[in-house]
Amino acid sequence: MHIDIQFVPSPPNPNLLSNRVVVVIDVLRATSVMAHAMSQGALEIIPVATVEEAFQMAKVFPQGSTILGGERGSKNIPGFDLGNSPTEYVAERVRGKKLILTTTNGTKAFQLVSSGREILAGSFFNIGATAQKCLELNKDLFIFPSGDEGDFSLEDTVCGGMLIDLITKKREKPISLTDASRCAQILYQRFEDNLLEAFHLSRHGKELINRGFGDDLVYCAQIDITDMIPQFRGGIIKT
Amino acid sequence: MHIDIQFVPSPPNPNLLSNRVVVVIDVLRATSVMAHAMSQGALEIIPVATVEEAFQMAKVFPQGSTILGGERGSKNIPGFDLGNSPTEYVAERVRGKKLILTTTNGTKAFQLVSSGREILAGSFFNIGATAQKCLELNKDLFIFPSGDEGDFSLEDTVCGGMLIDLITKKREKPISLTDASRCAQILYQRFEDNLLEAFHLSRHGKELINRGFGDDLVYCAQIDITDMIPQFRGGIIKT
Repeated sequence: MHIDIQFVPSPPNPNLLSNRVVVVIDVLRATSVMAHAMSQGALEIIPVATVEEAFQMAKVFPQGSTILGGERGSKNIPGFDLGNSPTEYVAERVRGKKLILTTTNGTKAFQLVSSGREILAGSFFNIGATAQKCLELNKDLFIFPSGDEGDFSLEDTVCGGMLIDLITKKREKPISLTDASRCAQILYQRFEDNLLEAFHLSRHGKELINRGFGDDLVYCAQIDITDMIPQFRGGIIKT
Repeated sequence: MHIDIQFVPSPPNPNLLSNRVVVVIDVLRATSVMAHAMSQGALEIIPVATVEEAFQMAKVFPQGSTILGGERGSKNIPGFDLGNSPTEYVAERVRGKKLILTTTNGTKAFQLVSSGREILAGSFFNIGATAQKCLELNKDLFIFPSGDEGDFSLEDTVCGGMLIDLITKKREKPISLTDASRCAQILYQRFEDNLLEAFHLSRHGKELINRGFGDDLVYCAQIDITDMIPQFRGGIIKT
């Protein structure tokens, strides 16, 4: 098994992805929201690029069957049902619903890697289950942190590094790591006893604190609260 | 002072660089060769992109005034005077000469950042002097690891992280670090007691060992053997 991680969310070579398992990571907060919403009974998630597209998509389905969620510049979107805090995505709001989601980095990332063989949404919430799934699929792995508005993201890379760390410790057969994968694993090992510290040091984490979402950092630092692994197929995220 | 590091050697935004000090790093081995050659009395270094260009450039100058050096795929280039091992660049060979240099990653990197306000060549050989120079210039800093054939390079990023570590520890006024800069600093701290270990783990380091250049890894892991800081200006590298 070969494990690579791309540090900056530019479009990867689609040929590279066709036989690989891709794990998209946007810990703060899109892939955390996805795992949380699925664990609370959301039917499926439709990631869309723009706010306008979200409103259009909602019209396609019967009234009451969808819920609109997401953010722009970390802030809630006028006219949307929910923002981008995982704690909003509870059973009373999302059970049996299709979630139409648009976020600054996370939802776009899925479009960029849509040629992947399997495309999973990873976060600390489901990191153990995601590692186990990667081991079972037994394909080369491409980890895609969704980044911070096009830049390297500390928190997503720490999460990618944890995935690498779990897989390398569990797998008995040899694994080859790229230089970037080694770097991500080392980064994770620096923060493994205090993931919240990584959030507090990151640019995006600081922004969320400034915008009043500090509680989301504490919540999103929880490990293995669900076994749900959102999977992206044909434009839709299901388990 | 703001410090950023770009993990992958794609062309940076030139507008971003015009008021910044840029430090290009290719520890294995181009920027190490540059510092070493200058410390041994080379007059100047002319970095060129291709082997053909190197031969053409040599014809411009009087016979005996230039020396041709570099590599392709880590191997010596037929018809060249020297390869890409710093230990070849000793006073008896380079004193008073113009060095025409072409390497896979390092010499191209200088072209990519040519819009920088000041462009320095950093390596472990001159890391202390480079940090001191950056502090004196007192401008925002952009660190540009030249990478491993377009990919992230572990050893160059460790060196960039050491530069960040030295500057943050010496500077009394506040410094702002991007997420990438923090990651590089953490990566360096993991290897600070054993830089050679980083070389041995890196893809390019392993390639050099396989090609018989293992001694270069040991040599290039030396810290502060010179105060020379090669500077790129108008297509030429001088001190």
